Amino acid sequence: MEWTERQQRIVEIVKDSGSITGEKIAAMLNLTRATLRPDLTVLTMSGVLVARPRVGYSYREDLGPSPIMERMLQLRVCAFKSMPVTVLEDASIYEATVAMFTQNVGSLTVVGADRILLGMISRKDIMKASLGKIDLQQVPVGVIMTRMPNIYMTTLDEPVLSAAKKLVQHQVDSLPVVEGYVDESGNECYEVVGRFTKTNVTKLFVEIAETR
Amino acid sequence: MEWTERQQRIVEIVKDSGSITGEKIAAMLNLTRATLRPDLTVLTMSGVLVARPRVGYSYREDLGPSPIMERMLQLRVCAFKSMPVTVLEDASIYEATVAMFTQNVGSLTVVGADRILLGMISRKDIMKASLGKIDLQQVPVGVIMTRMPNIYMTTLDEPVLSAAKKLVQHQVDSLPVVEGYVDESGNECYEVVGRFTKTNVTKLFVEIAETR
Repeated sequence: MEWTERQQRIVEIVKDSGSITGEKIAAMLNLTRATLRPDLTVLTMSGVLVARPRVGYSYREDLGPSPIMERMLQLRVCAFKSMPVTVLEDASIYEATVAMFTQNVGSLTVVGADRILLGMISRKDIMKASLGKIDLQQVPVGVIMTRMPNIYMTTLDEPVLSAAKKLVQHQVDSLPVVEGYVDESGNECYEVVGRFTKTNVTKLFVEIAETR
Repeated sequence: MEWTERQQRIVEIVKDSGSITGEKIAAMLNLTRATLRPDLTVLTMSGVLVARPRVGYSYREDLGPSPIMERMLQLRVCAFKSMPVTVLEDASIYEATVAMFTQNVGSLTVVGADRILLGMISRKDIMKASLGKIDLQQVPVGVIMTRMPNIYMTTLDEPVLSAAKKLVQHQVDSLPVVEGYVDESGNECYEVVGRFTKTNVTKLFVEIAETR
């Protein structure tokens, strides 16, 4: 774990003081308590600092490795993904919308022959389309979808953590899970084999937190 | 932690065998490997079983409490919520849609005077409306919103785990964070003070998993 400079300073302050409240740490660093909160959370979750109500923060020397966290990092997308929900490029926006309702998903993967990934269409894309004057029954999803190569993807063997980071960093709700290969013409192709969503991460979070 | 009967049987099988593959456990229970996977995940995450590549599962006697997991359970919604994004009941669906885009959120909290919670409107509600023949510029959000008391809520001091479970169980992407009180007329009111979403949980998951 790499600590930021500010986090290192916080640890030094806590070490020096024995125990100290978050407000006092904030005052010493000339920061607000709100600004400091993520740092304190990270340091507390990692076990470097111990937080006690009313007492404040103190430093914890006896930090062993956490086997549960270690194992959590080994979890792979394949065990937690959902089934892909796909639509063809020439389906109408109307049809795609109905598919989202009947399948109760927030986005669809747009595929060609052999389930090759062509693009993604989200509720947001459909909302944008419905603001305009276009005929949802006539216009195909291919017109409004986000198209390859502008799609963030994951693979069956990617660690769940790294896939979750993609969801956060790229501000998307869902990643297609793909298996890549090179076809006879030498093109890189991605076959869609699943989807990995914030719902999957939320379920996993609950599962982990409940298994003390 | 309460184990299911099947999980207890799995633990017995592993104890008896020293170490055993998932396939063999599945065969002994007359189940598929896929059916067994959630149980094995729960047992492995909790530290009862240890999984090793090629060797399989073995039983772990030296299970101490996990301080990180304990602290994870103490995290409260207040530290991880987002700012509320609200709209008035008489705003048009069109205005609400634009607000979702400009604020980049998947749902809006519909409020009355004093930020009292009246309902919620999601991308899904808007998509449903746009499938019909209604005029998005004319119809107010109050007509299509999910209305109180049919709203799942959370509070500032609710544990994150329990709020995350609500998201999963009720299949919603977002919960309004509220502070409840009784007004002069004796009505229960809920003032909206934030929102708690699957994005918040996903970010927290990443934060925890990265702080080994």
